[in-house]
Amino acid sequence: MVEIKDMLGRQQVIRSDGRQVDELRPVRITRHFTDAPEGSVLIECGGTRVMCTATFTTGVPRWRKDSGQGWVTAEYAMLPRATAERTDRESIRGKVGGRTHEISRLIGRCLRGVVDMKALGENQVQLDCDVLQADGGTRTASVTGAYVAMVDALRWAEKHHCIRSADRVVRDSISAVSVGVVNGTPMLDLPYLEDSQAMTDMNVAMTGSGEFIELQGTAEHRPFTRKELDALLDLAAKGNKELQAAQRAALSLD
Amino acid sequence: MVEIKDMLGRQQVIRSDGRQVDELRPVRITRHFTDAPEGSVLIECGGTRVMCTATFTTGVPRWRKDSGQGWVTAEYAMLPRATAERTDRESIRGKVGGRTHEISRLIGRCLRGVVDMKALGENQVQLDCDVLQADGGTRTASVTGAYVAMVDALRWAEKHHCIRSADRVVRDSISAVSVGVVNGTPMLDLPYLEDSQAMTDMNVAMTGSGEFIELQGTAEHRPFTRKELDALLDLAAKGNKELQAAQRAALSLD
Amino acid sequence: MVEIKDMLGRQQVIRSDGRQVDELRPVRITRHFTDAPEGSVLIECGGTRVMCTATFTTGVPRWRKDSGQGWVTAEYAMLPRATAERTDRESIRGKVGGRTHEISRLIGRCLRGVVDMKALGENQVQLDCDVLQADGGTRTASVTGAYVAMVDALRWAEKHHCIRSADRVVRDSISAVSVGVVNGTPMLDLPYLEDSQAMTDMNVAMTGSGEFIELQGTAEHRPFTRKELDALLDLAAKGNKELQAAQRAALSLD
Amino acid sequence: MVEIKDMLGRQQVIRSDGRQVDELRPVRITRHFTDAPEGSVLIECGGTRVMCTATFTTGVPRWRKDSGQGWVTAEYAMLPRATAERTDRESIRGKVGGRTHEISRLIGRCLRGVVDMKALGENQVQLDCDVLQADGGTRTASVTGAYVAMVDALRWAEKHHCIRSADRVVRDSISAVSVGVVNGTPMLDLPYLEDSQAMTDMNVAMTGSGEFIELQGTAEHRPFTRKELDALLDLAAKGNKELQAAQRAALSLD
Amino acid sequence: MVEIKDMLGRQQVIRSDGRQVDELRPVRITRHFTDAPEGSVLIECGGTRVMCTATFTTGVPRWRKDSGQGWVTAEYAMLPRATAERTDRESIRGKVGGRTHEISRLIGRCLRGVVDMKALGENQVQLDCDVLQADGGTRTASVTGAYVAMVDALRWAEKHHCIRSADRVVRDSISAVSVGVVNGTPMLDLPYLEDSQAMTDMNVAMTGSGEFIELQGTAEHRPFTRKELDALLDLAAKGNKELQAAQRAALSLD
Amino acid sequence: MVEIKDMLGRQQVIRSDGRQVDELRPVRITRHFTDAPEGSVLIECGGTRVMCTATFTTGVPRWRKDSGQGWVTAEYAMLPRATAERTDRESIRGKVGGRTHEISRLIGRCLRGVVDMKALGENQVQLDCDVLQADGGTRTASVTGAYVAMVDALRWAEKHHCIRSADRVVRDSISAVSVGVVNGTPMLDLPYLEDSQAMTDMNVAMTGSGEFIELQGTAEHRPFTRKELDALLDLAAKGNKELQAAQRAALSLD
Repeated sequence: MVEIKDMLGRQQVIRSDGRQVDELRPVRITRHFTDAPEGSVLIECGGTRVMCTATFTTGVPRWRKDSGQGWVTAEYAMLPRATAERTDRESIRGKVGGRTHEISRLIGRCLRGVVDMKALGENQVQLDCDVLQADGGTRTASVTGAYVAMVDALRWAEKHHCIRSADRVVRDSISAVSVGVVNGTPMLDLPYLEDSQAMTDMNVAMTGSGEFIELQGTAEHRPFTRKELDALLDLAAKGNKELQAAQRAALSLD
Repeated sequence: MVEIKDMLGRQQVIRSDGRQVDELRPVRITRHFTDAPEGSVLIECGGTRVMCTATFTTGVPRWRKDSGQGWVTAEYAMLPRATAERTDRESIRGKVGGRTHEISRLIGRCLRGVVDMKALGENQVQLDCDVLQADGGTRTASVTGAYVAMVDALRWAEKHHCIRSADRVVRDSISAVSVGVVNGTPMLDLPYLEDSQAMTDMNVAMTGSGEFIELQGTAEHRPFTRKELDALLDLAAKGNKELQAAQRAALSLD
Repeated sequence: MVEIKDMLGRQQVIRSDGRQVDELRPVRITRHFTDAPEGSVLIECGGTRVMCTATFTTGVPRWRKDSGQGWVTAEYAMLPRATAERTDRESIRGKVGGRTHEISRLIGRCLRGVVDMKALGENQVQLDCDVLQADGGTRTASVTGAYVAMVDALRWAEKHHCIRSADRVVRDSISAVSVGVVNGTPMLDLPYLEDSQAMTDMNVAMTGSGEFIELQGTAEHRPFTRKELDALLDLAAKGNKELQAAQRAALSLD
Repeated sequence: MVEIKDMLGRQQVIRSDGRQVDELRPVRITRHFTDAPEGSVLIECGGTRVMCTATFTTGVPRWRKDSGQGWVTAEYAMLPRATAERTDRESIRGKVGGRTHEISRLIGRCLRGVVDMKALGENQVQLDCDVLQADGGTRTASVTGAYVAMVDALRWAEKHHCIRSADRVVRDSISAVSVGVVNGTPMLDLPYLEDSQAMTDMNVAMTGSGEFIELQGTAEHRPFTRKELDALLDLAAKGNKELQAAQRAALSLD
Repeated sequence: MVEIKDMLGRQQVIRSDGRQVDELRPVRITRHFTDAPEGSVLIECGGTRVMCTATFTTGVPRWRKDSGQGWVTAEYAMLPRATAERTDRESIRGKVGGRTHEISRLIGRCLRGVVDMKALGENQVQLDCDVLQADGGTRTASVTGAYVAMVDALRWAEKHHCIRSADRVVRDSISAVSVGVVNGTPMLDLPYLEDSQAMTDMNVAMTGSGEFIELQGTAEHRPFTRKELDALLDLAAKGNKELQAAQRAALSLD
Repeated sequence: MVEIKDMLGRQQVIRSDGRQVDELRPVRITRHFTDAPEGSVLIECGGTRVMCTATFTTGVPRWRKDSGQGWVTAEYAMLPRATAERTDRESIRGKVGGRTHEISRLIGRCLRGVVDMKALGENQVQLDCDVLQADGGTRTASVTGAYVAMVDALRWAEKHHCIRSADRVVRDSISAVSVGVVNGTPMLDLPYLEDSQAMTDMNVAMTGSGEFIELQGTAEHRPFTRKELDALLDLAAKGNKELQAAQRAALSLD
């Protein structure tokens, strides 16, 4: 990160990858990435690549039976060499770690936040987000990609007469982005390098109508002020708007 | 919850337990609740009761060795009949659930957020938060109680010459409180009944100086607006200030 | 432990806490310790404190279905800092240890020993004994406290018309106490310090009518003779009689 | 079980297998049952068959290092079809059950009860008791058989100069037998059929010198009186004397 | 292994146990080894001893319901001291290892390969192969022994009118043997010593009519040629023919 | 599958995907598929897609220390929606299944079969094969792809002076292919549809010099004859030669 001044003397921060502080990394959303799932999306946010599949099944878990309502759930995992150093598989260790649990639950809540469970009926959508390559923001990329996979799965379900209308099930779009304070400067969409230096790190999931579904801010290194929070929320709003444009663009192709 | 108007025609919300929307439940902090731990606190927030113990040990986990820095970690659990219906023990199930993991990690991050790891030196504080009775806000009560237990453990460590000064290790106090939007009204410190009806639920951990350490807002039932967020943060700031007063009062007795 | 002689030249043993060899530690039984469970008891035997809850549920485990009989089961656990050194949680380790298993089974057998399963009908009582503080005799305190919690749960069930009569279900009272040979002297109700020095350690559960339900004697350090066994059983009979008086006193309040 | 009277009008009980109430089932102890272990014994008590192996290894577990003392431990298990109905393997279930834990710990305590840990030095004996066929009394047969396997392993260790003298390590012999009250009659050495009908069931481990190492009596079905206890202890003393004779006979062959 | 020349100058290999390269170790098959199982066999191949039990139960696993077809499955395990050094129990480790899984699956496939699932009807045979002593070839001995146990269990089922005809269920016999290339020489039925030196190791399961059910060849140390493969298959055919003779002989006794 | 006759009256089999019986599916090998691993390959065999990464680390597992030799190991897994129906994650189930274990071990043995462990020195290569999409032959595709990833990792190690020469470590190339008898006709490279109908299924791993490393044939549905085996081995030899050509082509690009 380099701080320079522009001609008007305003301080400017140049990030290590050349981006502006309020600039997203390049986003690429590939639908129908694999053939078997009802929805299958590869989302790439800079170096982060997550494969998001959506499985539509009729019927719901036992505790949800006879409620007339559906259910949406998510599981997140990293492949062993998604990271610079190999991570042991959780299947081998025999248990799912706290971080994995936390992220899986976050993704599930975000997606449920835009689904009309009654319109879904007693059907289930299971989202699987597997990180092929990790360079920061894997959980937010998962939310953004899983949304597209879910829409595809619901369109499939509509076409196969499992639900009446995918549009009625999905009340709004949802995307998520990370923001953080790095060296005192609020920034949008942190890659791993910035993330590991951030004093504060926040993940913000927002609907297409600009409201919040999930907000998670953490300040292990230095507490953040209300003012910083406001700056971060502004950046997140900008980022999510752009991510939702990418989602719309991807979903308009067929 | 009842909505009435006061003499000036302003709408007033009376909560089921008679509290104002910006009123905390009664807080009681009992230090030295048990004898063995270096810090042992029973915190009661209304019907919620959490036993928080702090274990001080010299030495740090292997990955932290020779760093000159200490470590603070936390574990949260519920006794089987803390709740209206009995919950199976996680030891019997053979694995820790996602919710437990998520909360344990939250508590750990909050406490680490106010600790100067260098001043702690290569020593460790382990916080155990066991919920004896649950009536909403168990995770925030855990943070608030664990802080007091940690200070006691560090004072013990200072007295036993394991660290130089407890005051230098603890950079600031930390407490947490839940806020939420219930029937469209932002409210402070939700008991179980309100929590289960909340459209939005947020846990806010703040330092004594009024800055944020952790912010977790979730809206499974209805997204929340920036304006609602602001109202919730104001309530949280008020609640945390009062909780910190209770912490100070408890810690001043000896 | 000090051995002195009295005026008649009889040797007298003064225990480290000043008790006579046949003297119980102070016992305190607090009913309705928490609100949610059908029975909730805090039992304190000297420094040992165990929270015993009883959960009454209609229905029985599958293997007991259509038998016309009920079931009583128990689980025992220690909080991490019940002891001088922190013990890792069994939920984190992913399995329940041998000692925990052994004690849970002991408590269950003791309570079942005084219950008329037919009178209970196809209902279940689950006892949870969680040790808040351990100073010897946690398993026997658990039996003694769990009995009171079970009676409360059955009274609740009678009042809610789940069973006809709590008195008919409970055929007799049950309590348990530890005895042991310390430095060659048989003693009643060993605290941790004496327990760790005992050559022989025995836990004796007896009914109100003075019969045995469970007897577990172990002599890792030195075998014990039939004569020593007799002396220990006499001490246990005395101790259990007093514990049962404490149970009756607690249960007579309402 | 049939009750008849003899010529003097004394009531006599004939057990289903024709034994007297104070009669052991036939005992057979086969040493060197397999080749690899330092001690390998097949013990047969009526229909119960247990393979007991003893593994001698130099060195002790970490917690015992530099104590100058050895350690003895035991593990008990049942093969899936040791019983009339197949039992699932604990390895497949992924955890060791409570009963297995309880019995393994009992066997270990019994054997340790006759071992001089200082004479053993920093060496370990691991006893494995695998039930090939179960017809009651598997845990007591395990103790009796494991003793012989342990002696063989210690003789091996003496011969290989790992310890000075097996005789000095083993302070006394140890055997165990079950006794119980069946239909009101105290009986020795219960097979499965009697065991499942017993009101009271007790396992008694005694040394060659007639003292107790372990005593476990349980009365799920009907409490037992001090008088019944005395009768059971007399039977156990007789049974253990005979089992120890069988141990001596087996160990005298070479 | 010694290589000598005979009078005609032909090279001859004498194995460490004096066998010819195409000679099996002595085989002993003991039926009715224990009483409880429907089929119970002890098979001894040289120093390798495996207890194989067959459990016949009416009904099939859920996934097989209403198919009109039966199921055959197998589990393999080693007792801790089957080997020269003690192996930890998989129940204690809390999971079944890869080798155990692999062998259990192999045995199951082999047995299923000769069973007519329709003739078996909706019944299940569970084979348990527990290695009492291991000296190479435990998995092939398990297949050979399990076949005899399965036939006994099916004869039992026929006698108890659970199936119409054991002969119709078993389409052919099945046995297995190991072969390998040791020091360049293909050999039959490798004991542990040869197995550990083998460049190539192959397990071959064949039917009574000389066809293959399972073939597993592995060459960690040196790849093997098609010519070596042919030699190994010839040895395996010879060995399996002899094992099947032993099976027939055992099954003809009654 | 359709059987027709050609002009000379010879019977010809047309497979459902239009291939000849001895024809491979299209193979595509993409190197450098992700950035972090030392070797990262995407292999596509028809509809089957496996991501193979190779992790090079200095040092070996403890049991291999001070041997002067390296180690190669492999882990195989399927993403939940690689298949038509979603499979539960093994991490969630808390244990690795038998099939996964079996395949991981197979891949490891194959790769070790062509590695000179002394030339590798005390270094380790870990291969991770994660199936993104499964259409038959995932284990053989994993072997073929893992070889390329391993070579890339060793070239990386050579370039970074961790080993002297990648060429000296890799003694030969290795690939694997499935063959099987479908409706009586031996065929090469079975997709899922054919695989599920196959009477016999064999996986054959061969070196570049045409020798065998691993051979696994299974005949659950119908035993196979020596003649069929020979036909299958011929097909496998042809297929592996072509796969090795594809490996060479991929590795020649840089």
